[in-house]
Amino acid sequence: MKLLRVGPKGQEKPALLDEQGIIRDLSTVVDDINADAISPENLEKLRQLNLSEFPQLDKSLRIGACVANVGKFVCVGLNYADHAAETGAEIPSEPEVFNKWTSAICGPNDNIIKPKNSSKLDWEVELGIVIGKSGRYIDESEAETHIAGYCVVNDVSERNFQLERGCQWDKGKGCDTFGPIGPWLVTRDEIDNVLNLSMYLEVNGKRYQDGNSETMIFSPNYIVSYLSQFMSLEAGDIITTGTPPGVGLGQTPPVYLNAGDQIELSIQGLGRQQQTVVEYSEAEA
Amino acid sequence: MKLLRVGPKGQEKPALLDEQGIIRDLSTVVDDINADAISPENLEKLRQLNLSEFPQLDKSLRIGACVANVGKFVCVGLNYADHAAETGAEIPSEPEVFNKWTSAICGPNDNIIKPKNSSKLDWEVELGIVIGKSGRYIDESEAETHIAGYCVVNDVSERNFQLERGCQWDKGKGCDTFGPIGPWLVTRDEIDNVLNLSMYLEVNGKRYQDGNSETMIFSPNYIVSYLSQFMSLEAGDIITTGTPPGVGLGQTPPVYLNAGDQIELSIQGLGRQQQTVVEYSEAEA
Repeated sequence: MKLLRVGPKGQEKPALLDEQGIIRDLSTVVDDINADAISPENLEKLRQLNLSEFPQLDKSLRIGACVANVGKFVCVGLNYADHAAETGAEIPSEPEVFNKWTSAICGPNDNIIKPKNSSKLDWEVELGIVIGKSGRYIDESEAETHIAGYCVVNDVSERNFQLERGCQWDKGKGCDTFGPIGPWLVTRDEIDNVLNLSMYLEVNGKRYQDGNSETMIFSPNYIVSYLSQFMSLEAGDIITTGTPPGVGLGQTPPVYLNAGDQIELSIQGLGRQQQTVVEYSEAEA
Repeated sequence: MKLLRVGPKGQEKPALLDEQGIIRDLSTVVDDINADAISPENLEKLRQLNLSEFPQLDKSLRIGACVANVGKFVCVGLNYADHAAETGAEIPSEPEVFNKWTSAICGPNDNIIKPKNSSKLDWEVELGIVIGKSGRYIDESEAETHIAGYCVVNDVSERNFQLERGCQWDKGKGCDTFGPIGPWLVTRDEIDNVLNLSMYLEVNGKRYQDGNSETMIFSPNYIVSYLSQFMSLEAGDIITTGTPPGVGLGQTPPVYLNAGDQIELSIQGLGRQQQTVVEYSEAEA
């Protein structure tokens, strides 16, 4: 299933994209696409529905973040062997873990707001894991059962805030709109092999990232198991799993985003995001 | 006012500690002590209540985290001049910012669960800021109006996970139970001078931390303004503001927590926390 949320920000309705590409309103059966709705039991109930009975929604409606009320937005860094090679970094012996503030979450096609004093705004196409069943000390062999599905994430980053304003990255990773997720939460059963998904990211039509999850160092199942040593993972948490080569920081010379730039990114089977970069003042206007 | 939440974990009732030390049930007037209840408008409504009409609650009930549904748990590191001096670190030119996962939040007297493979479990008494009004790019002169009140935080930390498992601190800061907050959210009007509050932390009756917020490098108002450059602060967010000298890592030789250890910490006017350290297996039993 492809689950999504459509409507104005803060008033999104839960919905499903059916096999004919029709968006069906699920608001009579679930309150939202949230921790409750994406439990294994509730996903199974949704699968049993006769979709043709549910009202169609206008395809031109805004698409919101594919999960509501995300509790944690956990990030794994430097998780692609070819990206590590590109940057000259050694392949890490265990995942590097950091945070995006949940207030950074936005819809897949919402504007990316360039913060005041931003000079090094960058992109990262990433495979996102959506947790559907809570757990701690999850065995890798059981990890898959805790995953509701996957989604596209743009791990938008401000490199000056991230790398030149202290030793921790959090200042540059969680600004408002730095976390577009979606368009869809694609349930696990729809993905044949999560370790063989092509992905790309383009800026103004130029392809900068062109990778595949096959070059991931730590697999989604490993990451779920690993993170659960350090925290309870909870239904509705999002984990983003690192980016392939081709970020702006890695260009010679570096390339950063400016107002008016158009970003397009996609992962095979998970849909496409399109964003426009705007200045903070424009966003508020 | 001193607002609190009492009852079993997940079933806490909103309450108020009155001037006679009686706990009054507020569940007929607010759903919980959450973002809605602590808005400036709603705090003013609570102030107008005739408290003697509200039912008394049993003082022996468990006290939960003083705020429900915390959206972000933002931390400032190395924010005390005497702590910086103790560690030989330079005084930072701007706040160091990191994260505690919201799943780490627990009641002020709940057990601290020592994670599996933990070898360097440590403590940090800290002044917590509770945001009551959302905002971005908040001017320092306006920052106070965004603060609902203050609380005690124990920024429990696992130094091996934090410092020896990668460059980011998040693995060692947000394990379950690493974020006791409370007992009370003390509204801002009750604190005469937030920059002159004594605080201490004892382990098994030995006083390790004995500080005062007067040696803070960056004030709460400055921190609110500063952080709002990097994210929207939202009602219900918690910001913890760094610790004075005397953490376990700073002892010669270092001192770390083990199962059975008793922790007591307090900040002037904000109440006291008492925790027992337990192994993970005991906690689950």
